[in-house]
Amino acid sequence: MRKTLLSIIFSITLLQLVAQDNSYNLMPVPKSIQRHADYCAVNKQFTIGIVGHPGNRVYQEATRALRRLDNRMGFFFKQGNLNNKDSSHNATLLIEVKRPAILNLQEDESYRLQTSARQVKITAATDLGAIRGLETLQQLLSVHQDGYYFPGVVIDDEPRFPWRGLLLDITLHWMPMDVVKRTLDAMASVKLNVFHLHLTEDQMFGIESKVYPRLTTVGAEGNFYTQDAIKEIIAYADQRGIRIVPEFDVPGHCTAMLKAYPHLASVPREYELQRYYGVFDPALDVTKPSTYTFLDSLFTEMAALFPDEYFHIGGDENTGKDWDRNPAIKAYMQQKGMTTYRELETEFISRLLPILKKNGKKMMGWDEILRPGVPHDIMIQSWRGTESLVEAAKQGYTGLLSTGYYIDLIQPTDFHYLTDPVPANTPLTKSQQQFIVGGEATMWTEHVTPETVDSRIWPRTAAIAERLWSPQSVTNVEDMYQRLEKIDLYLEGLGTTQLKNKGMLMRRLANGYNTHALEVLVDVIEPLKIYERNEGDTMYTVFSPYTKIADVATPDQKVARLFRNNVSRYCKAKDPKMVPGLKNQMELWKNNDTAFRALIRQSPVLQEAENLSANLAQIATIGLEALQYIVAKKSPPKDWKANCLQITKQAKEQGGRCELQVVTAIEELVETASLFKVFH
Amino acid sequence: MRKTLLSIIFSITLLQLVAQDNSYNLMPVPKSIQRHADYCAVNKQFTIGIVGHPGNRVYQEATRALRRLDNRMGFFFKQGNLNNKDSSHNATLLIEVKRPAILNLQEDESYRLQTSARQVKITAATDLGAIRGLETLQQLLSVHQDGYYFPGVVIDDEPRFPWRGLLLDITLHWMPMDVVKRTLDAMASVKLNVFHLHLTEDQMFGIESKVYPRLTTVGAEGNFYTQDAIKEIIAYADQRGIRIVPEFDVPGHCTAMLKAYPHLASVPREYELQRYYGVFDPALDVTKPSTYTFLDSLFTEMAALFPDEYFHIGGDENTGKDWDRNPAIKAYMQQKGMTTYRELETEFISRLLPILKKNGKKMMGWDEILRPGVPHDIMIQSWRGTESLVEAAKQGYTGLLSTGYYIDLIQPTDFHYLTDPVPANTPLTKSQQQFIVGGEATMWTEHVTPETVDSRIWPRTAAIAERLWSPQSVTNVEDMYQRLEKIDLYLEGLGTTQLKNKGMLMRRLANGYNTHALEVLVDVIEPLKIYERNEGDTMYTVFSPYTKIADVATPDQKVARLFRNNVSRYCKAKDPKMVPGLKNQMELWKNNDTAFRALIRQSPVLQEAENLSANLAQIATIGLEALQYIVAKKSPPKDWKANCLQITKQAKEQGGRCELQVVTAIEELVETASLFKVFH
Repeated sequence: MRKTLLSIIFSITLLQLVAQDNSYNLMPVPKSIQRHADYCAVNKQFTIGIVGHPGNRVYQEATRALRRLDNRMGFFFKQGNLNNKDSSHNATLLIEVKRPAILNLQEDESYRLQTSARQVKITAATDLGAIRGLETLQQLLSVHQDGYYFPGVVIDDEPRFPWRGLLLDITLHWMPMDVVKRTLDAMASVKLNVFHLHLTEDQMFGIESKVYPRLTTVGAEGNFYTQDAIKEIIAYADQRGIRIVPEFDVPGHCTAMLKAYPHLASVPREYELQRYYGVFDPALDVTKPSTYTFLDSLFTEMAALFPDEYFHIGGDENTGKDWDRNPAIKAYMQQKGMTTYRELETEFISRLLPILKKNGKKMMGWDEILRPGVPHDIMIQSWRGTESLVEAAKQGYTGLLSTGYYIDLIQPTDFHYLTDPVPANTPLTKSQQQFIVGGEATMWTEHVTPETVDSRIWPRTAAIAERLWSPQSVTNVEDMYQRLEKIDLYLEGLGTTQLKNKGMLMRRLANGYNTHALEVLVDVIEPLKIYERNEGDTMYTVFSPYTKIADVATPDQKVARLFRNNVSRYCKAKDPKMVPGLKNQMELWKNNDTAFRALIRQSPVLQEAENLSANLAQIATIGLEALQYIVAKKSPPKDWKANCLQITKQAKEQGGRCELQVVTAIEELVETASLFKVFH
Repeated sequence: MRKTLLSIIFSITLLQLVAQDNSYNLMPVPKSIQRHADYCAVNKQFTIGIVGHPGNRVYQEATRALRRLDNRMGFFFKQGNLNNKDSSHNATLLIEVKRPAILNLQEDESYRLQTSARQVKITAATDLGAIRGLETLQQLLSVHQDGYYFPGVVIDDEPRFPWRGLLLDITLHWMPMDVVKRTLDAMASVKLNVFHLHLTEDQMFGIESKVYPRLTTVGAEGNFYTQDAIKEIIAYADQRGIRIVPEFDVPGHCTAMLKAYPHLASVPREYELQRYYGVFDPALDVTKPSTYTFLDSLFTEMAALFPDEYFHIGGDENTGKDWDRNPAIKAYMQQKGMTTYRELETEFISRLLPILKKNGKKMMGWDEILRPGVPHDIMIQSWRGTESLVEAAKQGYTGLLSTGYYIDLIQPTDFHYLTDPVPANTPLTKSQQQFIVGGEATMWTEHVTPETVDSRIWPRTAAIAERLWSPQSVTNVEDMYQRLEKIDLYLEGLGTTQLKNKGMLMRRLANGYNTHALEVLVDVIEPLKIYERNEGDTMYTVFSPYTKIADVATPDQKVARLFRNNVSRYCKAKDPKMVPGLKNQMELWKNNDTAFRALIRQSPVLQEAENLSANLAQIATIGLEALQYIVAKKSPPKDWKANCLQITKQAKEQGGRCELQVVTAIEELVETASLFKVFH
């Protein structure tokens, strides 16, 4: 009972973070791994030596690796900050690097990691490869009867795709520096290499311009990155081998710019920062020369700040309505023989290209920027479907996939995991496939705050990272989920908050320390998916509380997923050994409602989940009945099935912007029980 | 059993954060509170109106109060960011302010908070008083059968002392912006009003100087506050009515300065940043005019950055040895007729005074700056004992107490709570007492990181805040601990990490999700106190891991404290109803060792606590025996007591830099059992 209770309370089984024996739990899985018997023990004499022609990056990352290992093993290593004096070939960990890397799309990230009884050796053409190898090493750390060790392996590794990104939107909810840094740490640990900052929006302008200071004094409300902060982010990312791609969204999604500089607008209006979320009409007047003067100065300033060769100009979701409302714009279009606003957008894109080019930048944008006549060195980020990416590649345009990687939409991790930028059945030829450089997970932040954002990004983005790094053949979903659970804990050790904030959010929501009844419910609910949560785009504003049950609930609820899997297995094979587990689980749900109602009285904010809790109890009751019939191989009474399915149908209704995730499993039990009808 | 287990697992009993009925759990306790029946219900129509002559601060804080309330109750309030249009006298919460405050030692912080059935009204002479009242209001939020409400009260409140501070050292371990901001949020919530930043040390120089950039390019290793960051901190604190007092420690504790600008040093040396913790010899050469030129420029730059009238120059712990080592300094002293280095320090202080004065600043420093002839407008921060503070007050010097508020030393909260800057038995006259303006908790950061610092500051500093705000007569320790447990949860809701990081630290340390055995042990151990942890000042360096069992262990372990209290109560009155509780507790400890040993095999970093766990099991076994004898009123065998005390003596030994906190209670049980000897 004690064990059962514990595992229920923590909703997890005993798991170990440092690998034991030969189960290394690497994520992403390397390209090639050979095992041998000569493990390398780790004790307090552990040292790192660096040889070859390394740059500063590898000294910094090796220092960080040393401290991370010490934080896990607690040995008080003697080595301080590493520098070129730390070049002993006899070090426990020897890093050999041929040259410092240049962070770009073409750079070599390969490495070899070899263990022997007296040394671990990482060899790489570039320091970038070496630091990828250091992350693999962290994940390899293991425990056996004599203590810590690195198992005997030869790993040869390199990425499948060169662009493995995460977009973080910092405009729909502001994300301060600590979120950025811990996100970069976690990205590096799963070998992601592009951090895409969505910096400007209708709701705010998120980065200081010294040329146009009103962009933040008027276009923001205190929260934005200063240029010093941006430099800090770039340096932090660079050390970890991560490129920063900034996005300045034009010609739509720009209300904050228009509030600051109304002369840029298509329609004269009192511009205020948007408080709701969605797609709005305000757009730059792209027919006026002064707009290009402005963008030229702004982009020139920002191009100098961001070293990456790609510069993202957004380009998405301009409604065209404000252009329609301006007679001068309509006259301009007529004069140029343009019949749709898409043609005007095409002209806009073509006029931005030389501005970026003279600043040494390549243009990147969402699908919309792919227009007839645009040069081939742009980068298309596909958000509207793989078709547009395939179409682009056929035309010789470089692109990357974001469709299928929208991690804000609360879809299950296996859905993202099995989305491949170049699937096995791609219609593209081998040479066309080269135009698809990878993918990017996108974390839009309408419905997250710094308190909850990690729970949407992690651990699931690690599975996307594996898709983009590991061989195409690595697709075992169950294995992925098992490793993901370990990576979850590993990432927490690095600083991400998805696990620890769950407890905090529940204590606040329960208005007390005892959160048991809340946790039992939360473990089987997920927030409404895709774009359902914000009904009609009018429920939520930037001022809304994001501290409610839908914010504690996460995607990929493990208790629910395992229950669904177990029910399916049981309904197929009817293994009697599975009955007690299913029964205990459903009894827990059935009995939880009383405790949950008591919690509501103590914390009325939970009222909105009353129906979820009641429904859970009801379907658990049905599930227990179904289980009894199945075990007894007895047919249920007439109408039982219909009544049950009436109840499960009702249990699919939302409460607190969440849905129960175990209804289909209960229905499966009901259906299975009802099959005995023939023997009645 | 389930309930028992739960309460053991969470180590807490059911507690509610929002006050129920009439137990308001305010901390600090207000000066005067009258209760009446007319409570004010809160629903989604809740609004705030601001009238009188408020400044920007009250609009910002009222906006923050609105969002905080909504985050707790989840109503989706319609009001956005408040401004001077939000002046309805019919608002649910009406704030009436006579004038904006000036943040200084003399400012009025008083307020009145009155509830009626239709409105809560906060009236204050200054916006500072109003925002103190807003914090009281947050703590008043209550729940009854009809939902959320503010209870019927008339509160008249003002602080006992005008200086209620917290020192945060950011040099021994770097503390990034997120630590600073959540600390300021928490400080404001318990009405602390001075944030003292210890910015420079032997280990690093923590703030950007544009005049002397090498102070951070050479004197720091990447971590320091830019001037933009400092402005952000000042603005953030100002909004919350908190003054920022910066400390630039001279003439000692300045190795980082000397590494950057070696010409300032008393001894020519290769200066490197100190890696160990302690007191070191490097000191400014205070005999050279160039040193004053340097300090004049630096302090003038920094004085312009920090608006507060006080400027802390440290002045502590100069060993004088480096002055001794320099013949020129000795010659200078001889020429001036100085026989001790204290006299040279006195001259140094007197030469700094005009630099500060011309920049409009008053000097603040540690005890050491109180020297014959210094003017009376300096501020003495007492760290060496209350005597020096009393002595200063007698001489007409203003001072504040830090002795007794060193929260880094892991002493129990009640010790800090009962330390009074002006105790009832003070030898000072009424008018002399006026020179003592308050106190400051000090968070030195040798042995904490951003992950653990909150667990040393909170909730305990709330008790110090109460000492400094509330009437002298508020001294009930048990009542304080009960409210403190609720404040702990309340502060977590505001963003502090002491509760949620405990789980994270334990999961990392246990190398898995199941931390039960570790938690049972951690709940009864505390890190070595005072300065014992860092034996000989040579165990720890700035590179040491702070992720071990001593870092998960916190001061004020509640399970241990309650056990000690319960044992004392039981040994006095021998209430049989207490026996099962004591027995269950000791059985848990006795049986935990097996599970803890299994955990060590999974996570060898826990090895260092093996003896603690074994000792806990052993003394629990003895305690259970003692309890049996007491219950049976039977005398134990000859030698039993001596054997037991041998074991408890051994159990006082440290393990993992921690000590068991229940040994004295077991000894009390043994002693009590041994009293039956006479009846043998």
